[in-house]
Amino acid sequence: MARNLKAHGLAGEMAAEFVGTMILILFGCGVVAQVAAAGIGDHDSIAWAWGIGVTLGIYVASRISGAHLNPAVTVALAVFKGFSWRKVAPYALAQTAGAFLAALLVRWNYTEVLHAKDPGLTLKTQSVFSTLPGNGELPVGDWGAFRDQIIGTAILALLIFAITDLRNTAPAANLAPVVVGFLVVAIGMAWGTDAGYAINPARDFGPRLASWLTGYDTAWSDQYGYPYWWIPIVAPVLGALIGGAVYKFFIERYLPTGEPAEALPAKDLEPAA
Amino acid sequence: MARNLKAHGLAGEMAAEFVGTMILILFGCGVVAQVAAAGIGDHDSIAWAWGIGVTLGIYVASRISGAHLNPAVTVALAVFKGFSWRKVAPYALAQTAGAFLAALLVRWNYTEVLHAKDPGLTLKTQSVFSTLPGNGELPVGDWGAFRDQIIGTAILALLIFAITDLRNTAPAANLAPVVVGFLVVAIGMAWGTDAGYAINPARDFGPRLASWLTGYDTAWSDQYGYPYWWIPIVAPVLGALIGGAVYKFFIERYLPTGEPAEALPAKDLEPAA
Amino acid sequence: MARNLKAHGLAGEMAAEFVGTMILILFGCGVVAQVAAAGIGDHDSIAWAWGIGVTLGIYVASRISGAHLNPAVTVALAVFKGFSWRKVAPYALAQTAGAFLAALLVRWNYTEVLHAKDPGLTLKTQSVFSTLPGNGELPVGDWGAFRDQIIGTAILALLIFAITDLRNTAPAANLAPVVVGFLVVAIGMAWGTDAGYAINPARDFGPRLASWLTGYDTAWSDQYGYPYWWIPIVAPVLGALIGGAVYKFFIERYLPTGEPAEALPAKDLEPAA
Amino acid sequence: MARNLKAHGLAGEMAAEFVGTMILILFGCGVVAQVAAAGIGDHDSIAWAWGIGVTLGIYVASRISGAHLNPAVTVALAVFKGFSWRKVAPYALAQTAGAFLAALLVRWNYTEVLHAKDPGLTLKTQSVFSTLPGNGELPVGDWGAFRDQIIGTAILALLIFAITDLRNTAPAANLAPVVVGFLVVAIGMAWGTDAGYAINPARDFGPRLASWLTGYDTAWSDQYGYPYWWIPIVAPVLGALIGGAVYKFFIERYLPTGEPAEALPAKDLEPAA
Repeated sequence: MARNLKAHGLAGEMAAEFVGTMILILFGCGVVAQVAAAGIGDHDSIAWAWGIGVTLGIYVASRISGAHLNPAVTVALAVFKGFSWRKVAPYALAQTAGAFLAALLVRWNYTEVLHAKDPGLTLKTQSVFSTLPGNGELPVGDWGAFRDQIIGTAILALLIFAITDLRNTAPAANLAPVVVGFLVVAIGMAWGTDAGYAINPARDFGPRLASWLTGYDTAWSDQYGYPYWWIPIVAPVLGALIGGAVYKFFIERYLPTGEPAEALPAKDLEPAA
Repeated sequence: MARNLKAHGLAGEMAAEFVGTMILILFGCGVVAQVAAAGIGDHDSIAWAWGIGVTLGIYVASRISGAHLNPAVTVALAVFKGFSWRKVAPYALAQTAGAFLAALLVRWNYTEVLHAKDPGLTLKTQSVFSTLPGNGELPVGDWGAFRDQIIGTAILALLIFAITDLRNTAPAANLAPVVVGFLVVAIGMAWGTDAGYAINPARDFGPRLASWLTGYDTAWSDQYGYPYWWIPIVAPVLGALIGGAVYKFFIERYLPTGEPAEALPAKDLEPAA
Repeated sequence: MARNLKAHGLAGEMAAEFVGTMILILFGCGVVAQVAAAGIGDHDSIAWAWGIGVTLGIYVASRISGAHLNPAVTVALAVFKGFSWRKVAPYALAQTAGAFLAALLVRWNYTEVLHAKDPGLTLKTQSVFSTLPGNGELPVGDWGAFRDQIIGTAILALLIFAITDLRNTAPAANLAPVVVGFLVVAIGMAWGTDAGYAINPARDFGPRLASWLTGYDTAWSDQYGYPYWWIPIVAPVLGALIGGAVYKFFIERYLPTGEPAEALPAKDLEPAA
Repeated sequence: MARNLKAHGLAGEMAAEFVGTMILILFGCGVVAQVAAAGIGDHDSIAWAWGIGVTLGIYVASRISGAHLNPAVTVALAVFKGFSWRKVAPYALAQTAGAFLAALLVRWNYTEVLHAKDPGLTLKTQSVFSTLPGNGELPVGDWGAFRDQIIGTAILALLIFAITDLRNTAPAANLAPVVVGFLVVAIGMAWGTDAGYAINPARDFGPRLASWLTGYDTAWSDQYGYPYWWIPIVAPVLGALIGGAVYKFFIERYLPTGEPAEALPAKDLEPAA
């Protein structure tokens, strides 16, 4: 555990969260643009590229900041793992800024195909950037999306807690980021119906803002005309707290105490504070 | 091997099997709902999300309970590996309860799309929860499904025994759960035709019960009108015993004795007793 | 390197090759049956399940026999790596017997869907068991298939030599079998057009024999009526020798000598002799 | 770090870059031939086989040459990591020669299906070998392709720097090549629309030359008739420099100094100089 960490302070942690989340969204919004606007690939491409994007974002940031890359995870780590509360807002800001910049790059790079597919920049390609209930197509309302985001993010948080817990069987050899990526792949395949698996306020709000600033006038609403942007912010935070609590109550208290086992798991996703 | 395990007792083991199997089914039934009811993804999505669900369920439970997550595996470990017989029933109960609760959550979250696709809650979407011969569509009868479940679960058990055998070449660095997940991905791709690869009594019975309690009146029968629920219980147990026996007879007795090799494989899937 | 290997003799090695190759073919022929006869999945399913089948077969056999699972690999190891020539024929026999038994199990389990899809048991479903030039559909002749099998198996052998070479950067933590599985996935995706990527005489001949004994009268010929069975035997052996020679000439002689590096790679696929 | 490296000199490094890049292109051009000419598989097959091809090429070359396999990466390592400038041209030459030979082998092996699909050897199957703006089909011009190649290669270089940085959380157990492969899979899925993700001058120029020498008369131009071959050379080099600079400025300077952590990451992709 003794790590030769020099004091780099909050600036470095914010830089790491910024670049890590930027990488995540470069792949995440990028793949939806490629599938939904350019017609290359299918929903499995979306699930895989989002998941690998998470893996890669973690490899960028984990040594410096713990690679939360998600305000809901940051809050859950503050509540359950002693992550410093005074860093929560800066982390969330850096994550959202990274997601915002990445979405602008995707918006710029996919200009031609976005305009070819959807000249008016409507809800038809809004999903490249931000989520909608039932992905804008299925008969799911805002309540369904809210419920779904609580459950989906609870699954995410419970499993991040499990995979990174040195007293459990955390992957060693610095390979936890790969397993967390697989986790997001599977959430995309199994929990992406009702609300496009935002499960991350920064992932949804940053690109939503970027799309609105670049021509998507209806970015803040759903297909029913109701304001929707707050649901992928509030519900994931609630879900992450529930998932963390389930892990703590059903698993953590039964784990063996004392020294971690002989395996040396990756420190990824642990709070750096 | 010396592990600093505090006595946590059967309660912790049951909690771990409960949550681990719940995670497995949240992904497993979730992905079938997304594909079969919402039309997002295809059969490969089903194979991948089930397999990754197994991986993730193991990461949750393995340190505490050994992460069987499957009564057929629990029975095979009791027969061949000295797992305590008095824990078999509690493990099976916890596994089935976890699967049941997860299926209720899937049923709740996918309410809108299930009703849109199949208003009468019929065999058309029964496969979201439990299995049918030939997946309800192909010309396979109950005997074919029974035979298939014996073979499929024999493959599963033989390979779980191989992958977790410290005297063989078990994956180290706590990565055995990933390889077991790949195993289930491949069973889904190659052995999912005749009976929807239940290969796990808890995986099938828990969600079947949940579907029956929430409106699926024909949950206990197959498309021919015969009672079917017992086949994905009995056949997997028989198959797991055959698979374990094949491993013991053809491989285990030829393995080098003495200390495990220099690699420190994950302890996952080993009985904790 | 000092391994506590008890003398288990050729019988154990043959048992390991037998079961390991059986596992490979249970997944390999199984997935083609599921895709080609039952219509579940697509060509990517075939590539993934074959590759994972290789991974799993290696985990079963590698500690005892080195997990060649392929007579062409066995011959190349005899020529380039000192594997005992007197074991080549027994290994090839055990591999072919394992593939034969596995194909019979697939033939039995998929009886209903094979007859529903192809009542006459013709070349239409022959590909479930053995290979054809251009997969029986594309305008590729026997010469094209022969050429393709040389190149494809050369790629396979070159990379097996690279991945398992302790003086190179072999994967550690007993994870080489996963990388070898990825190798076969990619061969299926990129080199499966001209001859169905047999790249393994046992994989092709064993199931071909099984299909002939169970009703496939034209099993020994291609779609042009010429005898074809010898091509997936002869060409892979030639290819494996070329691939091994390329590795030896371009890579092996430039590798650093002396002790292996700090990483402890898996011993998988190494000759046990 | 102390490696028992015998002086093998530039010849060995060039041989390793030659064979490693050959392997990459055997899979890369091979899979596009299988999908685009033979109609087997889809765009996800292309993404996976390219990515796994990168993984496998690295396993061949990394111990000897560092496995750059890409002149843009070689230049970025010279600028930011002290790789010897006098080796840049020889490396680029060896990489391009390996890609060229591999493309000839693909051209030869897929002769029948290429001629069946595209008898005149036109832009219709040019994408088997080299890239086009918008993959020759989408409304993207040369500027769009140039911009895209800068961004895509910046992502590649930033992440190669992160994944192979011993002071960050580099994958250990010699598994970095697998993670770099996943990176290229995700680039293919998310950044393959505007210019077919060349992101590597050798990957594009070598096969382009091979196609021109074997009958593709329009190999040097895009679908608009403009010379295009220089864009996948110039833009990736610019992009790699930008990506390296972003890593250096935002991440590297915040990393802890001193000894690498307890994990022993793979040395792959490090300059051997």
